[in-house]
Amino acid sequence: MRCYTFIIILVSISLMNLDLIAQGWESIPGAWQNELGSVLVIDSINSDHQIMGKYKSSTGVDGQVFPLLGWINEEKESGRISIAFSVRWDGYGSITSWTGYFDADEQGTFMKTLWHLVRPQSDLPWERIITNASIFRKNQE
Amino acid sequence: MRCYTFIIILVSISLMNLDLIAQGWESIPGAWQNELGSVLVIDSINSDHQIMGKYKSSTGVDGQVFPLLGWINEEKESGRISIAFSVRWDGYGSITSWTGYFDADEQGTFMKTLWHLVRPQSDLPWERIITNASIFRKNQE
Amino acid sequence: MRCYTFIIILVSISLMNLDLIAQGWESIPGAWQNELGSVLVIDSINSDHQIMGKYKSSTGVDGQVFPLLGWINEEKESGRISIAFSVRWDGYGSITSWTGYFDADEQGTFMKTLWHLVRPQSDLPWERIITNASIFRKNQE
Amino acid sequence: MRCYTFIIILVSISLMNLDLIAQGWESIPGAWQNELGSVLVIDSINSDHQIMGKYKSSTGVDGQVFPLLGWINEEKESGRISIAFSVRWDGYGSITSWTGYFDADEQGTFMKTLWHLVRPQSDLPWERIITNASIFRKNQE
Repeated sequence: MRCYTFIIILVSISLMNLDLIAQGWESIPGAWQNELGSVLVIDSINSDHQIMGKYKSSTGVDGQVFPLLGWINEEKESGRISIAFSVRWDGYGSITSWTGYFDADEQGTFMKTLWHLVRPQSDLPWERIITNASIFRKNQE
Repeated sequence: MRCYTFIIILVSISLMNLDLIAQGWESIPGAWQNELGSVLVIDSINSDHQIMGKYKSSTGVDGQVFPLLGWINEEKESGRISIAFSVRWDGYGSITSWTGYFDADEQGTFMKTLWHLVRPQSDLPWERIITNASIFRKNQE
Repeated sequence: MRCYTFIIILVSISLMNLDLIAQGWESIPGAWQNELGSVLVIDSINSDHQIMGKYKSSTGVDGQVFPLLGWINEEKESGRISIAFSVRWDGYGSITSWTGYFDADEQGTFMKTLWHLVRPQSDLPWERIITNASIFRKNQE
Repeated sequence: MRCYTFIIILVSISLMNLDLIAQGWESIPGAWQNELGSVLVIDSINSDHQIMGKYKSSTGVDGQVFPLLGWINEEKESGRISIAFSVRWDGYGSITSWTGYFDADEQGTFMKTLWHLVRPQSDLPWERIITNASIFRKNQE
């Protein structure tokens, strides 16, 4: 009985992966690096389109690795993929949310993201959100 | 054997809740409504500080309810709480990420958020991200 | 000769004002206050649609008044008006740019703006831009 | 009499330029191009630190040239320069505000900006502001 359940789960996972590949997502999991040297690692994308992974910031948080969660969405007709992910900076009281899309130039595919970082440091609430943009490219290793 | 496991899980959940209450998060779960009538429902916050819940937009997506995921973070000294959550608009190809903090005025506590919405509609990548701000207040029911 | 020039200028200014009134801009000049008590004063809008005015922040700059410059734009068919203005915080090294539109609720017309504030304080360039939203309402005086 | 006035004006302009050079702004006027091929031309920066110039977008507005206005600010101690400028898209009902700072990498100095574009197209006010980031580099000509 247990054995069958296990096989069904395995088969489901395989079919899910085939589905992801068919949808052009096969190139998303892996390590992506931004212009500051921070690394976004997308470990997997499940059948609900949730991203599981981790983020290693090159700046501001001592090189620690933090878990991330997020979503992928795809428009069927155009094949355009949207992405969003967020990191809770444990011990810092802050959270960053990245939101973006995939695009390509002569150097290849990149992920263009805008982010909001909310930080508790300031006594003035209106000062607590900083913003900027990051371009992530797949690590060539 | 199974019974013990069950009891251990139950006790863990209880302790986790106590912990959340001790940290001043008890008032976060529930329904929050923004100025457009959209409703954010935070069902629970787990021990990793992940938010589980759903979002019912009043505009643009036909009144459907979508799952959300996100994070809470708290700065110990100040008690300031940061929040971020995101919704994948299934069937629309888009994703919204909200990022913000808690503040209060004469009407009570509110959550001030900025959001980025990435949409696949435009052929021009630079047109794909829209932004705005929303204030969410706890539903009085 | 000089007298004629003077008269022509006067008449031009009058016609310009008539034009502005005809386009529904008559209600824009004046003092607008945001939720933090900061006051935006729009002194005039010229025939190039440039805004001249001043800004008195309630927070962070000691109650000083700073000049602002900006633009108004109007879509003919819909009558929708877009606005943008910016303030150079002399002595602080920073600049804020507000961008927004006019909307109305049961309390009347308001200007919903998002802003970016660039500040030189941080050694890390990616930390230099903060963002938030402000709603300005006409002062009732 | 008129001749003297003219000379005084000329001398003032020269002194102003000397002042700008002394403050490290000499490299700002000129043509800057972003990653999409749009060109920002800064014609001059006056003694109030206002920017005069024009903007030629590569996308969305048929290659027209539009006037821009903006500010430069400098923090004395660090020499860090903030910049903001905005363009009114005459005939489109929209306005873009860029806000940013100067930074450098192995390719030289660049201006990193975030922008908000307010557009009247949508019936839904919350959809009217789009955002993204642009990096401008000095044209090598």
